[in-house]
Amino acid sequence: MKNNKLLIVGTMAFDEIITPTQASGKILGGAGTYIGLAASYATADIGIVSVIGDDFTSEYTSLLTDRGIDLSGVTKVAGQKSFYWKGKYHDNMNKRDTLDTQLNVLADFNPIVPAHYKDASVVMLGNLAPSVQQSVLDQLEPNPKRVVLLDTMNFWMDVALDELLKVIKQVDVITINDEEAMQLSAEHNMVSAAKAIHKLGPAYVIIKKGEHGALLFYKDQPFYAPALPLQQVIDPTGAGDSFAGGLSGYLAAQEQLTAAAIKQGILNGTAAASICVGAMGTEGLVSAEKEQFLAQLQELERLRTVS
Amino acid sequence: MKNNKLLIVGTMAFDEIITPTQASGKILGGAGTYIGLAASYATADIGIVSVIGDDFTSEYTSLLTDRGIDLSGVTKVAGQKSFYWKGKYHDNMNKRDTLDTQLNVLADFNPIVPAHYKDASVVMLGNLAPSVQQSVLDQLEPNPKRVVLLDTMNFWMDVALDELLKVIKQVDVITINDEEAMQLSAEHNMVSAAKAIHKLGPAYVIIKKGEHGALLFYKDQPFYAPALPLQQVIDPTGAGDSFAGGLSGYLAAQEQLTAAAIKQGILNGTAAASICVGAMGTEGLVSAEKEQFLAQLQELERLRTVS
Repeated sequence: MKNNKLLIVGTMAFDEIITPTQASGKILGGAGTYIGLAASYATADIGIVSVIGDDFTSEYTSLLTDRGIDLSGVTKVAGQKSFYWKGKYHDNMNKRDTLDTQLNVLADFNPIVPAHYKDASVVMLGNLAPSVQQSVLDQLEPNPKRVVLLDTMNFWMDVALDELLKVIKQVDVITINDEEAMQLSAEHNMVSAAKAIHKLGPAYVIIKKGEHGALLFYKDQPFYAPALPLQQVIDPTGAGDSFAGGLSGYLAAQEQLTAAAIKQGILNGTAAASICVGAMGTEGLVSAEKEQFLAQLQELERLRTVS
Repeated sequence: MKNNKLLIVGTMAFDEIITPTQASGKILGGAGTYIGLAASYATADIGIVSVIGDDFTSEYTSLLTDRGIDLSGVTKVAGQKSFYWKGKYHDNMNKRDTLDTQLNVLADFNPIVPAHYKDASVVMLGNLAPSVQQSVLDQLEPNPKRVVLLDTMNFWMDVALDELLKVIKQVDVITINDEEAMQLSAEHNMVSAAKAIHKLGPAYVIIKKGEHGALLFYKDQPFYAPALPLQQVIDPTGAGDSFAGGLSGYLAAQEQLTAAAIKQGILNGTAAASICVGAMGTEGLVSAEKEQFLAQLQELERLRTVS
């Protein structure tokens, strides 16, 4: 039987987010943070590999450890600051401009996988430099039941395509948004794009379409998970990471990793993303208890149910 | 018990369609034609109210009567031509320009509902001048079990908003695309737009999102029907009409008109639209037998099913 360990690699960082109606100031952010919080709704043994600076105090780490997330794989670099990103959303919230990026501790991030997580059944490679993702893969012990998931973005296609393709070759599940799927595959149609990405490695290709939901392609059999229609999106930051977290957490908690588990995991990811975008930054995930997560899941089932 | 009669009002016309890869020449078209063909996959007693010219010969009418569709409500005007539309799609197929519109017989269309269909349980008001839609409603006999569906477009909001609002007030189900829903409601969010449109009359508001599927709002409870991912869209013309046809045909064939029936009807409409866009004009619907329609429905179920 597989273990219920989920190993996450991703940034733990600070963001400053400007939406058409709000400015967040410096708040908790980072792919690893969102993924971990979203995954923690599942009954899994979750560990994060990341790097933080002095400014990432126990006030922030406790938000994760309170959820039972293991941070022994998080390196704290004395005298340095955590990764920082500042961005501003356009009026329709579908586009954003980066106003500032300070790599800080991320510049020399050398991920170290704790011994306890080297046999993890589920590994979630959050959106990060492909070289860091590869380093994590290199440290793992063999586990024939393992599922490796990858989230990435166009930036890495632009600056590190060869390394990214090498990582993609080793993963089972890739989550990628629609525009990025087209860029990666050089195709203009989702079905064709998914076919091309299958050939790069992943058996499961998940196309994230934002408010239009997510589309899984597996063995030429697509599966569609709608997004919950929301009257108001407060802040889309971290939606993709929350999706990856809900999905990978669910998978870690399952006894078997089947196509049905991936599909249900996509629904769980959708529920987590829905919670995320309803508040600024990680606020939604931090404040929503498991009951609220389950209520979102139930809403999603109603959305899909004929009778 | 309700009867299984479906009364359709809509154009029977000729189109000339130019896509990035094909030019159709003059081919069969019209909302009434698409709706009727799509509805004919259901076991219902279907009648169309429309107007045609001399050029709409038996070669074309037989495509409908061969499917068991009653054309006694179709007026043929001697010495005149049928409605004609010519349009050209942009590269991404999501936008089109009208190159030519010739109203011809449609200019003086005075719809006449045959006696046999005046008690129809399901009435589908295809995209047409609201005054024509109203005239059809005015000729109906009372039927407490009746469901009236309306399809419309931005053109009528621009040129006949008051008449359109009067019709909308009398319908149970409105199908409208996302941009048009925003125009009609003056809202920028789908949930808010649906709420505003509910207030105009329809208990069921169906937002058509093209390749992203369709979203039903009913009593604040949304339902989502995904569209089948297609490797190639040949011609989007008539997709919305085919959707309306699949939906209204399904409803006519049911013993009761419940929310569950509307939801399943939306899936049937989606299957019909999927067949429609896979070929030029009405070609897909004309050539696809019931088995092919059922196969599309089955594909759609697989797309929605977790295990």
